[in-house]
Amino acid sequence: MNLFYQPLIAEGVLHLDADESRHCVKVLRRQAGDALRITDGKGFFYDAIITQANDRQCAFRIEQQIVAEPPTAFIHIAVSPTKNADRIEWFVEKAVEIGVSRVTLMECEHTERTYLKKDRLEKVAISAMKQSLKATLPVIDGLVSFQTVINQADTQGRFIAYVDQDNPDHLVDMPASSSYLLLIGPEGDFSQTELTQALTAGFHKVSLGRSRLRTETAALVGCHILNLLRA
Amino acid sequence: MNLFYQPLIAEGVLHLDADESRHCVKVLRRQAGDALRITDGKGFFYDAIITQANDRQCAFRIEQQIVAEPPTAFIHIAVSPTKNADRIEWFVEKAVEIGVSRVTLMECEHTERTYLKKDRLEKVAISAMKQSLKATLPVIDGLVSFQTVINQADTQGRFIAYVDQDNPDHLVDMPASSSYLLLIGPEGDFSQTELTQALTAGFHKVSLGRSRLRTETAALVGCHILNLLRA
Repeated sequence: MNLFYQPLIAEGVLHLDADESRHCVKVLRRQAGDALRITDGKGFFYDAIITQANDRQCAFRIEQQIVAEPPTAFIHIAVSPTKNADRIEWFVEKAVEIGVSRVTLMECEHTERTYLKKDRLEKVAISAMKQSLKATLPVIDGLVSFQTVINQADTQGRFIAYVDQDNPDHLVDMPASSSYLLLIGPEGDFSQTELTQALTAGFHKVSLGRSRLRTETAALVGCHILNLLRA
Repeated sequence: MNLFYQPLIAEGVLHLDADESRHCVKVLRRQAGDALRITDGKGFFYDAIITQANDRQCAFRIEQQIVAEPPTAFIHIAVSPTKNADRIEWFVEKAVEIGVSRVTLMECEHTERTYLKKDRLEKVAISAMKQSLKATLPVIDGLVSFQTVINQADTQGRFIAYVDQDNPDHLVDMPASSSYLLLIGPEGDFSQTELTQALTAGFHKVSLGRSRLRTETAALVGCHILNLLRA
């Protein structure tokens, strides 16, 4: 099954963009009268019928609006960009498949890479949302400073993943809640100052397990554990 | 910290291979007398001293053998290869980081891709083992038929991930054991025949959650959940 994306349906835009029109009409050979399943990335699916199979602007009419099952919790991952940009793109793809509401690229003291193709990350997120038949496109923001992230944090569960010797609690043992923010540091980990600031701001220091994980793996593992937590 | 790899230390091979010698001597500029941390991929670390900093065959002597902490459980993932080979390579890299003892590339009825670069997958596994400072290199085998995989299964926990409507149990709710085999099907999922054969062979049908996951994502998510199970 194919899911198409048109974020402006509520604003009255009733056609697919150029890329999606081409895919729908040229590649999938859909014709006028054919049914389409579309999402606006804002929690809604739409059953639609193609009215004009134009491969640059495929027009449709809405038959039905369907409210998608909302995510069990709001999961926000703030992660330092990796030196290799592919790794963050990979994380975004997989996090969207598994379930994430917001991803913030966070600049920490030890962050080495600060240049980011945000539009590329959004493309990856849209494609993963469509592929996994979800109706909610996560917010992707960045680059945001570590300070700003912890100062603006307003989720119930706030966690900072930190690798150290005094065995912090495992994230999987944390209480379930309706919203989470998990901070994942750069290759060089958070600085002691950042850790202290996070703890002062009410973040709970957690472990993601015994293995030494790359930044993007830690971010995905953390996102997955938060998806597993249940009241 | 750098971890080097020499699988034949027990057989008396006391030098790094050409690639690792070049990396150690040319790139990292290690010299005779410098300390090295080496693994044989068989559960041991070795503290060694470079005796000859040769960039084609870097020789060392063993100072100490260290028994690595064994994995909490034997985790075996049998997964159908994906159409895009990168995705299976990605899975192997991440599974090694998180913890996996064996990966079998499994040919199912709906498997589309059967050509595989096994040596490439082994390179990926070695590099992930070194990067995550582990001392056990997982066995990678394949291509093996679905029949062979279920007939040879001898683990305590045996699971088949299957997406259907009669909500099977979630893998995270399964009892912890010392060894697991999890079957992950191709894009087209397992056939009804394969599902029946697995259930007859004593496999338990499990869900990996509500999300529709790609093959390689399902394999990684399953591997991660098995790492989280505790008695």
